Amino acid sequence: MLTNDGFRSLDRPECLRLLAEVPVGRVVYTRQALPAVLPVNFALDPDSSVLLRTSAGSDLVRAVDGVVVAFEADAFDARSRSGWSVVVTGQAGVVTDPAEHERLLRTGPHSWMPIRDDVFIRIESAMVTGRELVDLRTTAG
Amino acid sequence: MLTNDGFRSLDRPECLRLLAEVPVGRVVYTRQALPAVLPVNFALDPDSSVLLRTSAGSDLVRAVDGVVVAFEADAFDARSRSGWSVVVTGQAGVVTDPAEHERLLRTGPHSWMPIRDDVFIRIESAMVTGRELVDLRTTAG
Repeated sequence: MLTNDGFRSLDRPECLRLLAEVPVGRVVYTRQALPAVLPVNFALDPDSSVLLRTSAGSDLVRAVDGVVVAFEADAFDARSRSGWSVVVTGQAGVVTDPAEHERLLRTGPHSWMPIRDDVFIRIESAMVTGRELVDLRTTAG
Repeated sequence: MLTNDGFRSLDRPECLRLLAEVPVGRVVYTRQALPAVLPVNFALDPDSSVLLRTSAGSDLVRAVDGVVVAFEADAFDARSRSGWSVVVTGQAGVVTDPAEHERLLRTGPHSWMPIRDDVFIRIESAMVTGRELVDLRTTAG
């Protein structure tokens, strides 16, 4: 659907397809009662949850384990003023199951940062929304 | 300072210089008690506050007017696994002063979306933090 504000809503399959195209997204959460945001590289699990890899003692783990967070990714082109954004909202949690942890050590995302005592954070894709921005300068009738 | 986690902290002037290089950032706030994030194009005012242009009746105005928000921008290169991110945290508010509004109609950011009843949102740069990710695969001794 192309709304009159220049955005087209994206359905869940479109959102997940676009998410898989980019390596970096942003975890959005609350830290000391203030809005906080941290860019991280990530991977999508086959069940469509978002997987992050970080250090067991990181601030991120303390801030998001067990709470609902948003995870955003986007791609925009300034020249054409077009692009897309996707937001996954769901509960974040450290993967504690040993077999699952072992699987993710083999198949999960590799952090772009050196980390210690690897842990994986899974963000459930309870709600997935997205929109595409179309350049109305060229599409307007 | 290059920390042992591969990040270098950026000072306020560096953060503001990098912010000025990108057209799109992300407003991070709370909507119905859930973390929310919206990518928007923006401009920096000479006083270093972040300026957004939107419609008077937009959800964004209702959600952020008068509250503390975060505003994030970044640029990463997947090939070199390097990049930077900057977060501005401060109170957001609709510009209500008529002279200021007139000035911003002439000099402020142009929205990439068609909007009605233009309003400007100013995010005060009360706290500005940033970090640069260095590819440790090539810099490690």
